[in-house]
Amino acid sequence: MDQSALDASSQETISASSDTGVTLYVCVTCRAGEEGDAAPRAGRRLHDALTENRRHQDGAPDFRIVETECLSNCNRGCNVALTGPGRWSYIYGDLTQASVDDLLTGAAKYAATDDGLVPWRERPTIFRKGVIARIPPSTTPV
Amino acid sequence: MDQSALDASSQETISASSDTGVTLYVCVTCRAGEEGDAAPRAGRRLHDALTENRRHQDGAPDFRIVETECLSNCNRGCNVALTGPGRWSYIYGDLTQASVDDLLTGAAKYAATDDGLVPWRERPTIFRKGVIARIPPSTTPV
Repeated sequence: MDQSALDASSQETISASSDTGVTLYVCVTCRAGEEGDAAPRAGRRLHDALTENRRHQDGAPDFRIVETECLSNCNRGCNVALTGPGRWSYIYGDLTQASVDDLLTGAAKYAATDDGLVPWRERPTIFRKGVIARIPPSTTPV
Repeated sequence: MDQSALDASSQETISASSDTGVTLYVCVTCRAGEEGDAAPRAGRRLHDALTENRRHQDGAPDFRIVETECLSNCNRGCNVALTGPGRWSYIYGDLTQASVDDLLTGAAKYAATDDGLVPWRERPTIFRKGVIARIPPSTTPV
């Protein structure tokens, strides 16, 4: 785990109209096992590929792509997290730039749900095999 | 991953006064590698030990303990998740009934923060070593 990132706050890189409140967080500090100080890092390259790819898609995006630091799953980077109000949140790992199309498709399916539970058969393979963990939605204080 | 739990909703087992909205979710379906159909399961035993232990604590609880099904991290069960409004969410694994006191202490420290980021040195060892992943707080739709 990257302790130096414990106090780091996420930074929003795309300001898009969105009614869903769904966010695809991308860890941009991940080296994904690459040695040395190669820049940009693997996580940054994944983030930039996602935003660049989406720029060429038609229609208004229904989720935001936001960069963040360290999702505490460094052994299986690159990592992303999908979260949104009232939804189960998911962490996915083992991602590369080859995952970009499936990530955008999977995030759109997630954003189209009310609870974050995309039917198993509709999930991209990277979501089926790369799930690290999931967290239930926040409950309402009583 | 327990596919049968994909559509399962979490169930609240304690209704406690709480201003924080913080929830400690406990996966009660986890077998934690135990063979056979032993009942109650390891996750259920952990959940029940947590609630029983807290019952003997003084003061109003500042977080809720809620049972849930499958946090999709079956290789490192038992698992819990800590989440709350405006906070980073955390998944922890490798937990047993011996973790109960530290879990309650760690969850209280988490509930006392605004952002979910407990200083590293104040975290119980089970939180330092057992972290599976974390997810940034939901952002506000723009």
